[in-house]
Order: sequence, then structure tokens, then C-alpha cells
Amino acid sequence: MSADPARSIPPAAPLTVDGKRLWKSLMTMAEIGATEKGGSRRLALSDLDREGRDLFCAWARHAGCTVSVDSMGNIFARRPGRRPDAAPVATGSHLDTQPTGGKFDGVYGVLAGLEVVRRLNELEIETAAPIEVVVWTNEEGARFAPSMVGSGVFAGVYDQDWAYAREDLDGLRLGDELDRIGYRGAERCGDHPIAAFFEAHIEQGPILEARQRTIGRVEGVQGMNWYDVTLTGAESHAGTTPMDRRRDAYLAAARVADRLAALAEAHGPHGVATVGQVQVFPNSRNTVPGRVAFSVDLRHPEAEVLAAMERGLHHALETVCEPVGIAREVARISAEAPIRFDPDCIAAVDGAARALGYDPVPMVSGAGHDAGFLAAVAPTAMIFAPCADGISHNEDESAEPEDLAAGASVLLNAMLARAGGSA
Amino acid sequence: MSADPARSIPPAAPLTVDGKRLWKSLMTMAEIGATEKGGSRRLALSDLDREGRDLFCAWARHAGCTVSVDSMGNIFARRPGRRPDAAPVATGSHLDTQPTGGKFDGVYGVLAGLEVVRRLNELEIETAAPIEVVVWTNEEGARFAPSMVGSGVFAGVYDQDWAYAREDLDGLRLGDELDRIGYRGAERCGDHPIAAFFEAHIEQGPILEARQRTIGRVEGVQGMNWYDVTLTGAESHAGTTPMDRRRDAYLAAARVADRLAALAEAHGPHGVATVGQVQVFPNSRNTVPGRVAFSVDLRHPEAEVLAAMERGLHHALETVCEPVGIAREVARISAEAPIRFDPDCIAAVDGAARALGYDPVPMVSGAGHDAGFLAAVAPTAMIFAPCADGISHNEDESAEPEDLAAGASVLLNAMLARAGGSA
Repeated sequence: MSADPARSIPPAAPLTVDGKRLWKSLMTMAEIGATEKGGSRRLALSDLDREGRDLFCAWARHAGCTVSVDSMGNIFARRPGRRPDAAPVATGSHLDTQPTGGKFDGVYGVLAGLEVVRRLNELEIETAAPIEVVVWTNEEGARFAPSMVGSGVFAGVYDQDWAYAREDLDGLRLGDELDRIGYRGAERCGDHPIAAFFEAHIEQGPILEARQRTIGRVEGVQGMNWYDVTLTGAESHAGTTPMDRRRDAYLAAARVADRLAALAEAHGPHGVATVGQVQVFPNSRNTVPGRVAFSVDLRHPEAEVLAAMERGLHHALETVCEPVGIAREVARISAEAPIRFDPDCIAAVDGAARALGYDPVPMVSGAGHDAGFLAAVAPTAMIFAPCADGISHNEDESAEPEDLAAGASVLLNAMLARAGGSA
Repeated sequence: MSADPARSIPPAAPLTVDGKRLWKSLMTMAEIGATEKGGSRRLALSDLDREGRDLFCAWARHAGCTVSVDSMGNIFARRPGRRPDAAPVATGSHLDTQPTGGKFDGVYGVLAGLEVVRRLNELEIETAAPIEVVVWTNEEGARFAPSMVGSGVFAGVYDQDWAYAREDLDGLRLGDELDRIGYRGAERCGDHPIAAFFEAHIEQGPILEARQRTIGRVEGVQGMNWYDVTLTGAESHAGTTPMDRRRDAYLAAARVADRLAALAEAHGPHGVATVGQVQVFPNSRNTVPGRVAFSVDLRHPEAEVLAAMERGLHHALETVCEPVGIAREVARISAEAPIRFDPDCIAAVDGAARALGYDPVPMVSGAGHDAGFLAAVAPTAMIFAPCADGISHNEDESAEPEDLAAGASVLLNAMLARAGGSA
């Protein structure tokens, strides 16, 4: 993987980060926009986001990095390698948060990268390829929809002018806000070769905690289809309409929800199906519902299986509704294809984890991440660390310092293996 | 049933009403408060309700009745009998409507009674007991909750002062509105003996139409229990939470709805169960619902069966929720015991129907009616006539003139049998 095989072999004893320093950095960053309930609020391109970015840049420069910013406000902190012309091995995530976000979502990936740089400095390790830590702009999409817009423009998924024109609820435009906080950089977004990309992140789900494991080896991102479904039966009197004369749209919707759970379980363990939004009409306690609108969210890491789940949705609707005279409308309102990460990058994560004594859990991310877009332009993989109760996008987001240190140590060794380095 | 057995035998050939005259009366009354879509809007104690009452009183007086009004505004139009001291055989219903009501709900029962009087006049039949046609105040409960307040005070179910204090949405009180339209009468509500009460009504359900039958012999009113249920699981990410790690409150609610339908069917044909009102929290398409609140409406004509259905509800909740860690709260917010009508009155309806060549369908009313309260103070039964598609409380309410005439003819003969009469 390195141009210099003799120097590409990782040290026999794997390296570990300074977990206390990483934790301290996380807690310091969390003070910017700290909420009363222990979370953080740093909406993308707000004054607080600028403060967070400024702090990161100061830390990175202090660690010897050169800092550049591209035209989408993505920040690249570069630790030079022996071969200055080589594309960097990069890591990173985001510093923006949900309105009532936690201290770890995104921030962990950025500061784990900074800790990698600091640790390499301490150990006086020179890598062949440069090491970079990236802060992607507006990952959350909480202020400017859609999410992951900085990495999306970088990967060519979104047009930059379109991204600039995104507006927040006050009508402020993303491009103008980049200027306002001084983070519209000179480098054209996307003109930045990356040799490999790793993203460390809290899991935002319950699997690692439930299995009492420390490291998730993330092999891809689930595909996701969203549907809007409307079932129409007939409103009728709850007292005077016998069961066999009803065309109860809610009863049909309920049965469909049950079928979808069975469908997802049949495509387990990765298949998931969610009915999250439900509206019942007329929503009166003594009227048999005549109409129900509900959402369906289907996810699976494999495109073929996701397609089969979609067929399963149509089958469930047909078999539930037709016998009882319920009309159905189904619209697929969005479809995101599954993403598969790079086998060599996944192997680097796996090797680093095992060298450190962890038995990594092969996982597929259920949530979107910047790494999902990066996978289109660079070999990419992710590392998950556990979080409490799977809670994220919440001020209660919580993670253990040792687990976060473990994830950062895996990141350090995986990047080192990929970049080629020696003490 | 009559004090004079020799005169109590109904005529060998049963009598029939003048269906055209009945229909014309219905259409004339429907013009008061007529809506653009073909329904009527005569909210209780409004100016239009007064107009309707005035028209009825004028018709009744023209038919030779004396009219009295009690302290709740209930109107009694009396055709004298041979025995002036005898309690009257009464019939009636209500003239108030839903905000967008139909032309038949309630009105049919009142005008069928008036047609009975007119026909008895034409045929020069003198009954032993007087015949009365009653208009009960505020049956619908659409302007002043609760419903059936006039018959409720009459039967001692509601306190009159409490009823007077009921307010509409503008804060106007029922008692004041009775005064305003001139219908707070001198007779103390309830001080009005009734020998027997019959109420003719459109079915407001689909059974007669579906079975192509003309007459429903109503044997009682279903008992009805209402519950509020809240299920609490855990909100979680729709992408990152595997199916077997979810505590999906909506999936549990859906399964309970399915179980309740099966429970009602197991207690068929009279058992019904309805989930009409559902609220999902946080109601976001990519969040597994953490909480769902829904209503349950259980009805059955037999108290023991209704109690068994309540146990079935608790059983369904327990078996669905416990295995998946969903907490449940259940509150029974109202309970109305089943009402059984008087066997002799039911027999009078049955005999009248059969004499006219109809095969009456034994039925239990799923909706509440003034007759339900009357049953507490007088031998009572009801007659149902079919309506289109079971639609009621709706401007589309529709019924066939011949069916309404048939129901009124049954009423005529049943009342005559009960009152004792001869040409």
C-alpha cells in the first residue's frame, strides 16, 4: 500500500492513543455551544460552528499541521509525509451538531484524527504519505438541508452552486453564511486527491453495547427507501357497523405494519422496516377510520435484498387490502443505494483492531455519514465505537472514554498501515 | 295490555300509513336549515330548531292534538283516548340535527308519530289510551354535550339544573337558550307518565340494506365501554436499531388493533371493537415510535360479554406488550351498560311487522337513542328502517320513501295494539 514496502510494515506492537487527551479535547470542544442538559448546539455555519472550527484549526496548527479550507468550507489539516507529492491518507468527520445534539456525534471522528496526529508527533513517526484530518461542512443537515452537503459536493454528488443556495429557516443562504464566518476557502471543492479515507464515529445504535464489544468494522452503508402510503376504506359508525361490514383503513394499516416487521425480520439481521409517521382520519373515537396515511422506511445493505423488501411491501399491501376493499396508494419518495466500503481499508481496520486485541464486529451503518460520499472518490472504511443505549441526536448521547480511545487507537494503526510509517 | 280487552284486538287487516304524506312532511321539515348538499342543520335550541319545533306544533294542533312543553323543552303532542286518565302510549324522537346532518335522523321518528295521528284521524279510530308524539330536546349533543339530554333529565339520569348549565362553544347556556326560543315549558320534566314508548328511527347502519330487509325489531341498545390506551417503548433510530433491539410502540399498537378485531369477531355478530383515534410520537419517518396513544371502543348488547371483551383487551395488551418491553397504561373513560327493551313492546313491533308481511330482523342498536333512556321509566322498543350505505350524521343520509312508510305502518299498528283501539 505504501510506495516503500520496507517502511510500510506497522510496528510489531500496535500503537495506542492518549485516551485522556482525546477525552479532554472532546470535553473542551463540547463547551462551545454547551446546552444545559449536557449536550452541544453548534448549528452549521453559525457563530458557534465558527468557534469550533477556529479551535480545531488552532489545535491542528499547534500540532504542526498546515490548514487549508476549500470552497465548501471543508477544512483539511495536513501532517506532512516523507513523500510530499503523495495523496494523503485522510480521516475526519464533522463539528456541526443537531439543535439539541450530543458531544460525540461527528466531533469524535474529527478529534480522534487530531489525536492520531498528536500521537504520531509524540512517537516521532514519519509516514510516507501525508496524514490529513478533515472537517466536513454541514453534515447534520439540521440548519441547511440536505445533510452531508460538504462531502457531497466534494464527491460530486451535489452541485456547489446548488449547495450555496440552500437556505435555513430564516432565509439565510449557505454560501453567504460560509462567507460570513470566514470559511469559504480558495481551494476548489473536490480538487483534493485523497489516497484513503477512514472515519471513526460512535455507533448511534445498540449493537456493540448489547454484544459487549468495543470496535465495529463498518463495511458499508445500508440502502434506504422511503415510501408514502395512503389507505382508503370507508368511514362508518363505530356502534352500528358490524365487523364484517367495515372497511377500516386503520385496521388495514395496522396489519401492514405487522407484516412489514415480519418482512424485515425475514431479511435479518440487517433488514429493518419502520412505520414512523401515521395519520388517521377522521381520528374520532367512535368512527371507523376511513383513511390512514403512513410512512414506510425500508433499509438493507444489499440492493437486491432491498428490492425484494420493496416487493414485499407491495405484496403486504395487496394481501391485506384487497380482501377488505381498501384502496391503496404507494409512492416511493426517495431511494438511496447501498454503499460498500473498500475491502483493503476494511482489512486495515480489521488488522489494526485485532493487533490491539479487539474482535471487531462486522457492521453496516444504518445512518448516513460523510464516509458514504467519500467512498465514491477514495478507498474508504469506518470504525464504530459503542455509545450508551444507542442514543444519538440527543443531549443524552454518551460514550465511555476507554471505548473512544480504543476506536482512536484502531484508527491510528489503520491509517499508519495505509500511509506507511516508521518511528 | 288495554284496560278493555274486547277493544284491544288489532284490526284483522293491519293499517298502513300514507307514505306520500309522511315523505312530504319530511321534505318540508328538511327545508328548515336545509344545506347546499341536501342535508339539514338545525342545532339544538337555535332559531332553526325553534322554527322546526313551531312547525311540528302547528301540524300537531292541526291534527287535533293538544301540545304541552315541559321544563326541558320536551314537546308532547297528545291525541286523546277514550280513557282520558290513562297514561299515553307515546312515540317520538328529535328534531335537532348534527351540524351537517341528514334529513332523517330523529326527524323520521317524530314525523312517523305525527303520521300515526293523522292516519288514526282519517280512519276515525279511537284508542283507549291517549296517543302522544314527543320531541325530545338536544338529542344530538352537537351543540350542547352530552347527547340525549332532554330524555336523560326526563328519565332521571341527568339533573335538570346541571343540564341547564351546559354551555355551547360560545358560552351560551342550555337553560337560557330554552328561554330565548320560548320552549322552557311549565310542566316539570319527568312528571309525565308514559304507558309505553316506541321510537322509529333509520338504522344508521348497513345491516337491513345488506340483508334486503325492511324492518328491524330493536331489542336493546349495546353496552359501550371507552378506553384510552398509551403504550410507551423507546424512540430509536430507524436505520441503526435492529428489529430485535426495538421497543416500537406503534408496532405494538398495531398488533393490539389486530387482536381487538379478532376479539370482536370472536364475540360476533354483535361484538364490535374500534380503534378510531391514534397519535404516534414523535411521528417522524426515520424514528422508531417511542409512544402511541389510542382510543378503544368496545360494544356488545350483553353486559357479561362486554366484561369478557374488556378482559380480552387487557389480555391483548399484556401478550403483545410484555415480550417486547412496552409499558402500557389503560383507562376506562366511560362505561354505558347495555339496555334491554321491553319484551311486550318488542312483541308488539314484531306482531305489527309480521301482520304487514315483513320478516323483522332482530337487532340491537349500536348508537344511543332517546328510547334508551325511556326504557328506564316505561316499557319501550324501537323500530328501524333501512338507510343507504349505513350513512348517518352526514348530509348524504338517504332513505327510501317506501321503507320509511313501512316503518311508520309498523309503528301505527304496534301503538294501536298497545293503546287499544277500534274504528
